[in-house]
Amino acid sequence: MYSNLNKIAIIGGGSWATAIVKMLADNIEEKEIFWWMRDESAVEHIAKYKHNPKYLSSVELKIDANKVSTDITSTIKAADMVLLNVPAAFLKQAFEGLTTEDFKGKKIISAIKGIVPDENQIIGEFIHDKYEVPLEDIIVISGPCHAEEVALEKLSYLTIACQDLELACRFSKLINTRYIKTNISDDIYGTEYGAVLKNIYAVASGICHGVGFGDNFQAVLISNAIREMSRFVDAIHPINRDIKESAYLGDLLVTAYSQFSRNRTFGNMIGKGYTVKSAQLEMNMVAEGYYAVNSIHQINKQFKVNMPIARAVYAILYERHSPHTEMKLLAEQIS
Amino acid sequence: MYSNLNKIAIIGGGSWATAIVKMLADNIEEKEIFWWMRDESAVEHIAKYKHNPKYLSSVELKIDANKVSTDITSTIKAADMVLLNVPAAFLKQAFEGLTTEDFKGKKIISAIKGIVPDENQIIGEFIHDKYEVPLEDIIVISGPCHAEEVALEKLSYLTIACQDLELACRFSKLINTRYIKTNISDDIYGTEYGAVLKNIYAVASGICHGVGFGDNFQAVLISNAIREMSRFVDAIHPINRDIKESAYLGDLLVTAYSQFSRNRTFGNMIGKGYTVKSAQLEMNMVAEGYYAVNSIHQINKQFKVNMPIARAVYAILYERHSPHTEMKLLAEQIS
Repeated sequence: MYSNLNKIAIIGGGSWATAIVKMLADNIEEKEIFWWMRDESAVEHIAKYKHNPKYLSSVELKIDANKVSTDITSTIKAADMVLLNVPAAFLKQAFEGLTTEDFKGKKIISAIKGIVPDENQIIGEFIHDKYEVPLEDIIVISGPCHAEEVALEKLSYLTIACQDLELACRFSKLINTRYIKTNISDDIYGTEYGAVLKNIYAVASGICHGVGFGDNFQAVLISNAIREMSRFVDAIHPINRDIKESAYLGDLLVTAYSQFSRNRTFGNMIGKGYTVKSAQLEMNMVAEGYYAVNSIHQINKQFKVNMPIARAVYAILYERHSPHTEMKLLAEQIS
Repeated sequence: MYSNLNKIAIIGGGSWATAIVKMLADNIEEKEIFWWMRDESAVEHIAKYKHNPKYLSSVELKIDANKVSTDITSTIKAADMVLLNVPAAFLKQAFEGLTTEDFKGKKIISAIKGIVPDENQIIGEFIHDKYEVPLEDIIVISGPCHAEEVALEKLSYLTIACQDLELACRFSKLINTRYIKTNISDDIYGTEYGAVLKNIYAVASGICHGVGFGDNFQAVLISNAIREMSRFVDAIHPINRDIKESAYLGDLLVTAYSQFSRNRTFGNMIGKGYTVKSAQLEMNMVAEGYYAVNSIHQINKQFKVNMPIARAVYAILYERHSPHTEMKLLAEQIS
């Protein structure tokens, strides 16, 4: 039904976007790949050398030189599927000047895993509300998938979620490779919220490590985190889902147990006594979980789900509570 | 109701037994602790220096010198609660000469996490069948809890499972401390089988690492492992349980993600091409998962649960299949 869809625009130039371009290019289905990023010099470098100079720089990117661009309007215009992969905090800025007309008839794929600031909406909701893209034309893709392991062609699984399962299957056919297997799901809300929440739990995991808790406690924390995630997504969007599937539990595990996770590193610094500002300065970036916990805190005012872990992280990051005290309180609330 | 129960015998002298003696001794309830182990010189050392010379040797053990013994009959006779903590493979040998009479009226606590060889029974079933201890007098205790972190007094959670919840509460009151929190459960089958299965999945995790899979695959493997565990324990003993609780998922995580797990190390060597024999020789011990997967394979002949991960580990360890080939086959069966 969707076999004519084969022109894909990637919006964003980071490591996850680069990994996705690699997968799409390595996949054998005939297609055209268009790639937008803000950085002019990166575009020139990629056009000339077929490597992203800043991210996964060892990866060879089989992409036409004239299809990498800093012009977002023409990049989107050329495609029938638009894959979004800029940080959630910068999405509005990247989309400045774009209108409903630009997205008409296009399928939108979110690989962002974040919440649009101020709107407190996941990407799919935001695109649906602001640009009138029907919900069934929105796809969410999720891991567990570190971009670095895609670069090494380590076997990984992606979940492709869409309310229109045929569309999910079509995109799956365009991205699977020898090293990428895909699961199909109809749960765009759960998949996107799960990906957002896992960053909060990775921050929590880092904080616990920073204040001196060990692996025994970490295992209890994560087993409580998946139950908390289950309660929240079931309240937001109650459908029949198994939270133990790879898109939810697997994605949480790969993030919370990774020594390389930015969210975990950020949490670890907070646990060791850094302020939010000094941790951000030291890391020269902001961990997504920092924004996410504020958005989830706001959204949960309506749903009132019992979320002791997210609440503790919020209290530490936004109300300047002591990590030691909050984690001791948390330890009394989990089991 | 059980406040008179306060004489506890620990059977076994390994690191987990030593950690349990420490918890019991640090707990403030009045009690008597009796401790049996096979090794005469270790008994003398502990009586004299209050440290186990072989395991967690830095830990001071507040225990009476005359209550550590190599005489199992008198140790059990002195107690009203008997905590078993020898490897499952050596249980029958340790119990040689003991009869039903020796266990009469006693509460039995299993901290073994294994299956009795040849019998293919979990410890509770075996004690119930062979020594006529009523099932409701049998307690199972489970982590997530590395003994090494107990030695460091890192906050940890234990699950105390017993069909008689009052008895579980009584034992919980005897073992909780500043650094040990307890959960109560009525699921002795699920708790013990979960603890057995997690060792198999830790072996699988090691094999995957050994053959070259990365963290992305590991997360998918563990997310499938907890679903496999759920299917199996629900088939064996169908009660209403949440497999995401710490006793099941938490225990799996602390084992499968630990660099120090013997089962994971054993699996890693197998994945790298060692034979079972050479891996055992090199490690100078046998990983529990090696025995467990054979027992589970036998037990599952009756239940026919779909267990692709346990099946792959069995094929590799007992049918000499190639780890590479089996893991590739497994990758097609999980999602």
